[in-house]
Amino acid sequence: MSLTVVGSIAFDAVTTPFGSRERMLGGSAVHFSLASSFFTDVRIVGPVGEDFGDEHRAVLHGRGVISDDIEQVAGGKTFFWRGRYDYDLNTAHTEDTQLGVFGDFAPKLSQTARECDLLFLANIQPTLQREVRRQCERARFVALDSMNLWIETARDELLSTIGLVDCLLLNDAELRMLTGRANLLHAAREIMSLGPRAVVAKQGEYGCALFTPDGFFGLPAFPLETVVDPTGAGDSFAGGFLGSIAAHDGELTHETLKRAMAYGTALASFNVEEFGTERVARLTAQEIAARVAELQDITSFMGEPVALRG
Amino acid sequence: MSLTVVGSIAFDAVTTPFGSRERMLGGSAVHFSLASSFFTDVRIVGPVGEDFGDEHRAVLHGRGVISDDIEQVAGGKTFFWRGRYDYDLNTAHTEDTQLGVFGDFAPKLSQTARECDLLFLANIQPTLQREVRRQCERARFVALDSMNLWIETARDELLSTIGLVDCLLLNDAELRMLTGRANLLHAAREIMSLGPRAVVAKQGEYGCALFTPDGFFGLPAFPLETVVDPTGAGDSFAGGFLGSIAAHDGELTHETLKRAMAYGTALASFNVEEFGTERVARLTAQEIAARVAELQDITSFMGEPVALRG
Repeated sequence: MSLTVVGSIAFDAVTTPFGSRERMLGGSAVHFSLASSFFTDVRIVGPVGEDFGDEHRAVLHGRGVISDDIEQVAGGKTFFWRGRYDYDLNTAHTEDTQLGVFGDFAPKLSQTARECDLLFLANIQPTLQREVRRQCERARFVALDSMNLWIETARDELLSTIGLVDCLLLNDAELRMLTGRANLLHAAREIMSLGPRAVVAKQGEYGCALFTPDGFFGLPAFPLETVVDPTGAGDSFAGGFLGSIAAHDGELTHETLKRAMAYGTALASFNVEEFGTERVARLTAQEIAARVAELQDITSFMGEPVALRG
Repeated sequence: MSLTVVGSIAFDAVTTPFGSRERMLGGSAVHFSLASSFFTDVRIVGPVGEDFGDEHRAVLHGRGVISDDIEQVAGGKTFFWRGRYDYDLNTAHTEDTQLGVFGDFAPKLSQTARECDLLFLANIQPTLQREVRRQCERARFVALDSMNLWIETARDELLSTIGLVDCLLLNDAELRMLTGRANLLHAAREIMSLGPRAVVAKQGEYGCALFTPDGFFGLPAFPLETVVDPTGAGDSFAGGFLGSIAAHDGELTHETLKRAMAYGTALASFNVEEFGTERVARLTAQEIAARVAELQDITSFMGEPVALRG
């Protein structure tokens, strides 16, 4: 099944306790497309400037990502983000943001991009997400990510866009912020009442939780010796999640969504092991399969009942 | 197998967004003993004052908890705690603490209490925990809980006591505080290098994580419609955890510890559904078994591999 992602393509400058990079390929659509490339055909949509070169495109092509819908703006500069993580790797401290060509981004999808079976609306302005959603009317499964900025500045537009998608992926703090509900079950139920049939709460080092009308599913994060750079973890998760659904012909049972959570968790865990796209760019199918198997092992227990009293 | 718990027996005054209670039975040893009573014979050790009456003892006896080792101090007052939870139910705000007879507590265990197979050292001063550990030299499995107060004021004594037990149960923030390590894998490994063969990180609404030399195990918390009163959740977890181990004849494989985590999670989830001991006091074996089965369902996924590319 074909998959289209619309989001940012960026250069990131990142400093963490484990080192730094001055200018590496990043952006939500990049992390997503590399992660999902292990599962299906992926088409990336987003703007870049004149500073985006063949070596950057080569990273995408190395994983078979289709880059025809990348819009290169003459005289423009690619979106740039500079951030820092301290030992609490859960929080990114933004030091500089230069929107560049991303500031005037008005997504225009090719006919092929529009005819995708699955669509991921990475974190961009909700009105633009809605416009893309409209263009891809054939898509069988549409998932959306967002952030606190849009909850604060464009809440109504965000809620109405959420009403047009099948799945919302959000940090748990953002889910609470968006719905005003402290209990995630209640928050997820409120989101589902707007339209989506699935809600994924991303919980950073604590893993992730899935809510559907059929129930709940919780998965811890994969335990890592070292988290080097958390940038892009959420988008890599989404890439594994949607990729896995695509690989199962878009089947949307609670069971296939549970498995998709495991693939999302695996891809996110690889993403954070090194800076930027470095780890996922040279990842192998065998490594993913092994990590999912390990994830199953470290989350399953024998239910053989204890003889209880009373 | 016989199980002894040494800790606080208290009266709690608790206010949460869902109501309040002025004076209810509480304390770490009470919550622990009620939870573990579903699995094995439990003996509770701790001091109470003259204000501790038959109606309080009846709550323990109602679950078959052996109260012979409760020391009633003439003229004394039972430990009293007053606390409040806001909508963030993860944090208790202490408003009043009156140690009463607990201030001079010097645990003296009966011969039978000393001959226990399993021992839980609930959160009391680490030197007292060590003294109890010494008295119970026959115990095959000893677990210990502690808190930030002792990490701040009695760190060395705490570390040396931890060296004498088989398992440490601690909140993840406390584990980081105690070891100075941000990564829980590293923190747990450091604790295990002191002696324990298992470390349990309690993560509140996010569940719990187990570390042993054989590996890692993670389990989300059971999702609840309403958390009414979190007081005692950690001790109820410990009660289910040690109880399950006792019910498996003290077998200490990674597999039995994983299952113990599930029983701990189940007992903690019941504990917080109502105030104080109210829910666990009238809990049934059938309800526990059903919740563990449900927990297994909401954490397991089919590993049937996706056909991956690359």
